[in-house]
Amino acid sequence: MKTALVIGTGLIGTSAALALARRGVTVHLADHDTEQARTAAALGAGTSEPPEGPVDLCVVAVPPTYVAPTLADAMRRGAASGYLDVASVKGGPRRELEAMGLDLASYIGTHPMSGRERSGPLAASADLFEGRPWVLTPTGDTDTHVLNLALELVAQCRAVPVVMDADAHDRAVALVSHMPHLVSSMVAARLENAEETAVRLCGQGIRDVTRIAASDPRMWIDILSANPGPVADLLAEVAADLDSAVTSLRELQSADESKRRDGATGVENMLRRGNAGQARVPGKHGTAPTVYEVVAVLIDDQPGQLAHIFADAERAGVNVEDVRIEHATGRQAGLVQLMVEPRAAAQLAVALRERGWSLRQQ
Amino acid sequence: MKTALVIGTGLIGTSAALALARRGVTVHLADHDTEQARTAAALGAGTSEPPEGPVDLCVVAVPPTYVAPTLADAMRRGAASGYLDVASVKGGPRRELEAMGLDLASYIGTHPMSGRERSGPLAASADLFEGRPWVLTPTGDTDTHVLNLALELVAQCRAVPVVMDADAHDRAVALVSHMPHLVSSMVAARLENAEETAVRLCGQGIRDVTRIAASDPRMWIDILSANPGPVADLLAEVAADLDSAVTSLRELQSADESKRRDGATGVENMLRRGNAGQARVPGKHGTAPTVYEVVAVLIDDQPGQLAHIFADAERAGVNVEDVRIEHATGRQAGLVQLMVEPRAAAQLAVALRERGWSLRQQ
Repeated sequence: MKTALVIGTGLIGTSAALALARRGVTVHLADHDTEQARTAAALGAGTSEPPEGPVDLCVVAVPPTYVAPTLADAMRRGAASGYLDVASVKGGPRRELEAMGLDLASYIGTHPMSGRERSGPLAASADLFEGRPWVLTPTGDTDTHVLNLALELVAQCRAVPVVMDADAHDRAVALVSHMPHLVSSMVAARLENAEETAVRLCGQGIRDVTRIAASDPRMWIDILSANPGPVADLLAEVAADLDSAVTSLRELQSADESKRRDGATGVENMLRRGNAGQARVPGKHGTAPTVYEVVAVLIDDQPGQLAHIFADAERAGVNVEDVRIEHATGRQAGLVQLMVEPRAAAQLAVALRERGWSLRQQ
Repeated sequence: MKTALVIGTGLIGTSAALALARRGVTVHLADHDTEQARTAAALGAGTSEPPEGPVDLCVVAVPPTYVAPTLADAMRRGAASGYLDVASVKGGPRRELEAMGLDLASYIGTHPMSGRERSGPLAASADLFEGRPWVLTPTGDTDTHVLNLALELVAQCRAVPVVMDADAHDRAVALVSHMPHLVSSMVAARLENAEETAVRLCGQGIRDVTRIAASDPRMWIDILSANPGPVADLLAEVAADLDSAVTSLRELQSADESKRRDGATGVENMLRRGNAGQARVPGKHGTAPTVYEVVAVLIDDQPGQLAHIFADAERAGVNVEDVRIEHATGRQAGLVQLMVEPRAAAQLAVALRERGWSLRQQ
């Protein structure tokens, strides 16, 4: 790939352009907001001048609703040898393009799984996609040449290509992202009018469950509007589980012991299925979840405490895999949980104690 | 308080005993498993010999089902001047004690909010309760003397006392802990039989939502069995929200534009209520959530990188409030997100860049 045209210079488009430009591809940037395209160009993502002839790859990185018309326009102009989009939903845009009667041999739908709270070219980075899955949805009609252009883009962005059917992709993101997002909102919604004393009792559990409920509703309405069917199907499954959990809990209130036993069995089954599903969530290294040992260190909240802990861990030759800082309610003291390989935990605990740290047994 | 009797030397009982013993209280330890009481004594939590006369405070730290009979037995023996339990549910045990015809002036139900994955005396620590809320549920009948004994225990454990009505406590823990736990299990359960390709797309969002679904089902059946009513009521509310979300999503699939608009409004309301509820979750310092700026640093996964980053932050005079390490899928490289006070973010970014770190714009 020598030349590319990126249409839509928001977070994703500009990040992809930066990655391509860094590797010597001549990138042309276009946006309905020409100011935004010039900003992306100023960041080193390419030129905001239009290409003189057809480019190798046209990357369409516009909001979901504009994907099909933007692609159709570019294809009719013969802007490129291959075309792809990066929208978070894949079935709908493909069907729209088919309905427009376009020849889709030169098109491939893709989706880089790179979340980010901020948007716009200023949030962009050539490293945005590094190590993340980038879904490609070729069909039997897709030109091999176009698939290879897409694979080249993914490689230059240092992402990990994953090939899927478009509708399977949409069901998968409904499962791992859209459904959990709405459920998180529903748990959080229960706190809206809760008493202050109750809210004070919140701990790390509910904090984690509701974290993503803080996201921007406008972006999520777009995402959910583009994938309503698969999300509704999954929510209906969760609703059925909820109904049966309510039944089990009511049985636990019964005076009849055999009913209470049924209730306990129902709740237990739910919890065990949760265990089994949770165990499949990939760990941060993208493989099976690694079980780390936790070494917990008490700190006061002075600058430098963390630096000293990490320096002491380094001296002990221990690699800290993950870390969680838990501040105590209403005070500055806190707890640093260092996650390390099980075989390194004892060594780290001894080293930290020797250096005067106060550990909390886990 | 000079003398105490701790009945039940598991995690909570032994931790409280350690805190009391550390401050010079003579602590007697009892457990139906005498070996376990001796282990607690060997850890410095007190003596496994029975007291010669009544002690000042009797702490009952046995599983929920045994709380009422254990308390009744101790009260009938006149074991102490004041009695408290530490079970995670408060309404049921009180009603059981009342039904037994006991005089409850000398009793106060309490609940220290100190979660821990492990149990037993070996997991105990005098610091377990430090800075955590410890709920006290006095009634009009509770002796002031007994309330003060409980407050003294809470102070010696360096926890933060929170006074609540017993049933309000049970509804509060249903809200902030029990309901979110079951909902997390239900989201995780959807992954149990999902295709491997879909599971590969999991990101930080679903990882956070499902983290607590990994807990031990046996412990959670006990907890939920003791508080089924309030949990069922909240799950029924979530189920109603789920049903209306399914309706809204089906409307989004409609050919009729006004229906699609209704659907979008329904989804938006749900997301906004989630925003409002999430904003009430206390931050790690136990106050309103602080909005930190994120400074993201690319690392390779060598020991020492974190130490160097924290040392450089210290040199820049910046206090890191929280940290999250995100490893890239399938490789050792990763991203360290440093959360700092907004006014310190620019200073930190400049300092880290000067020292050669590669930052990713957020």
